[in-house]
Amino acid sequence: MINIRIEKTATPKTLPSQDNPLNFGTIFTDHMFIMNYDPQNGWNDARVVPYEKICLEPSSMVFHYGQEMFEGLKAYKTGDERILLFRPEKNAQRANNTNKRLCIPEIPVEDFVEAVKTLVKTDEKWVPTKEGTSLYIRPFIIATDPFLGVRPSDTYMFIIILSPVGAYYPEGLNPVRIWIEDEYVRAVKGGIGETKTGGNYVASMKSQVKAHDAGYSQVLWLDGVHRKYIEEVGAMNIFFKINGEVVTPALSGSILPGVTRDTVLELCKAWGVPASEKRISIDEIYEAYENGTLEEVFGTGTAAVISPVGELKWGDKTLIVNDGKIGDFSRKFYDTVTGIQLGNIKDEFGWTVEV
Amino acid sequence: MINIRIEKTATPKTLPSQDNPLNFGTIFTDHMFIMNYDPQNGWNDARVVPYEKICLEPSSMVFHYGQEMFEGLKAYKTGDERILLFRPEKNAQRANNTNKRLCIPEIPVEDFVEAVKTLVKTDEKWVPTKEGTSLYIRPFIIATDPFLGVRPSDTYMFIIILSPVGAYYPEGLNPVRIWIEDEYVRAVKGGIGETKTGGNYVASMKSQVKAHDAGYSQVLWLDGVHRKYIEEVGAMNIFFKINGEVVTPALSGSILPGVTRDTVLELCKAWGVPASEKRISIDEIYEAYENGTLEEVFGTGTAAVISPVGELKWGDKTLIVNDGKIGDFSRKFYDTVTGIQLGNIKDEFGWTVEV
Repeated sequence: MINIRIEKTATPKTLPSQDNPLNFGTIFTDHMFIMNYDPQNGWNDARVVPYEKICLEPSSMVFHYGQEMFEGLKAYKTGDERILLFRPEKNAQRANNTNKRLCIPEIPVEDFVEAVKTLVKTDEKWVPTKEGTSLYIRPFIIATDPFLGVRPSDTYMFIIILSPVGAYYPEGLNPVRIWIEDEYVRAVKGGIGETKTGGNYVASMKSQVKAHDAGYSQVLWLDGVHRKYIEEVGAMNIFFKINGEVVTPALSGSILPGVTRDTVLELCKAWGVPASEKRISIDEIYEAYENGTLEEVFGTGTAAVISPVGELKWGDKTLIVNDGKIGDFSRKFYDTVTGIQLGNIKDEFGWTVEV
Repeated sequence: MINIRIEKTATPKTLPSQDNPLNFGTIFTDHMFIMNYDPQNGWNDARVVPYEKICLEPSSMVFHYGQEMFEGLKAYKTGDERILLFRPEKNAQRANNTNKRLCIPEIPVEDFVEAVKTLVKTDEKWVPTKEGTSLYIRPFIIATDPFLGVRPSDTYMFIIILSPVGAYYPEGLNPVRIWIEDEYVRAVKGGIGETKTGGNYVASMKSQVKAHDAGYSQVLWLDGVHRKYIEEVGAMNIFFKINGEVVTPALSGSILPGVTRDTVLELCKAWGVPASEKRISIDEIYEAYENGTLEEVFGTGTAAVISPVGELKWGDKTLIVNDGKIGDFSRKFYDTVTGIQLGNIKDEFGWTVEV
């Protein structure tokens, strides 16, 4: 088991007021976790230290060759003042899948989880309590060799930072409008689309700006080969409820395997709702829309948990889903998951981990 | 025109000995160029300062969302002690093409070139003179907003660092062995393959490690859609000389538009050598190899200028090119370009720019 040294800050910050909206990802807590990697010592010097700037050589490989990865999860405070994490071992496992693809050394799952727990415990007073709030946890790894040449770095830093957050979408559970992208491509099989790494996100920005300018909040990506199979939304996986069945694109190699995505599929099993992962073309969705069987569309992700989709824009076609209102399945899923996360609903799945 | 303030180091480093090989990208000079961007002031505070670490918030967007880009060019010292750059405005233009795709604010071409010139001038004693050496110039931009959410950053740093280098391939002009990748994909049309950004390089590492382990020095990528059209080599564009004609893959949207690639095409025009950019399948190359018309294969890039390819490994097939020796065209191209770069051959093309 990892041994973590804790150096507390001498100058704690003032806690943000929960009366004002907590803008996602802008406020950070008093401490951060850091662990270094080098070939001789492996991952070493695990420590919680005061939140501070990172100083790197300008030749550090992360600035040039994109060898970086991240994860995202949340901590919640329950009514009886316990702090819960939601399926953190899933993030740790996915982190290692990313690491393997990007030639970054893996971190033992239990060390990853222990690092998260220790940091959250240190900054436990930062876990907000107001409805819809949580403590967002951002683990990430960066390549630090001071070297200009393309090869995996020999040295790395694993860092965790914490940010008290309100809702990811300030508009809350109001359905969002989604733009279906037909010019740009996010990822392709054989590439890095199934990893959580910066390169996938920067690739998405131009399209996202285009969608925002047209009044849409996110982009739905089609596959890079046929340009017709549905992949995922910017920061979310996507689900459709068609004629009573819940469907989502199969993990074909270019889609991020979301923890919330997996949670939907598990809950469908528990609830006896037919659900499947498969290849879904945009034509099929349009057909279902036309014949009136497209009941619900929603995105899932750690940041937002669930985002009902009220409108899909596909070229000159506009698909209004469920009259632009949140559907029953989306509502039930949101209530159940947030209920479990906040300790208000009994966790029969063993998903929550107490800090 | 950009106004650059210069703050010289009080503690200059010892110049590296040119008798030892200068390992590519490991030694850095006394100074660096920095310029900041924010929406109010645009690009501002251009300065040459002592080479030092960069200190950033751990939430800086470059660490999470891969919004980063780079360029690479070289400065050469001539026999009469002048310092020459090679087509630097091409790098500045390509930088802006990358910037546009990645939602990074553009830099005026003349400011980019002026920044390079000013920094090289400041560290002019670092330009090495031994045969095969040069001063490698690495301009790069990183996104610096302290924000965890996917959107283009509002703030950036443009930095230039310098590294005296020997040959990129220590084996020199000896032909290299290339592995043709058929599992992983580097980029796809609609993605970011034609930009010079970290995400493309990290995507290539796993394949490169596999190729190295099998004794190959680089990877040749096939297209991500059909998995049969030739794209580029890890750090180079690729050329084939077939039956007297020079061919290279067309810039289809997923290939980096190399400055040296363009130089080959320009020289072919000047020399009356038939040359074309087109879609080239790996089957065509194998066919040319089988019928004895595959005369030369070579990679081109700023770092190596030219790398003759002596062997291509495609699944269970091994293609030995030109008996594993450097070809006449490759040799003539190398001698001409390096001759122009070093001021030994008259520059009839206006490619060199004196610092």
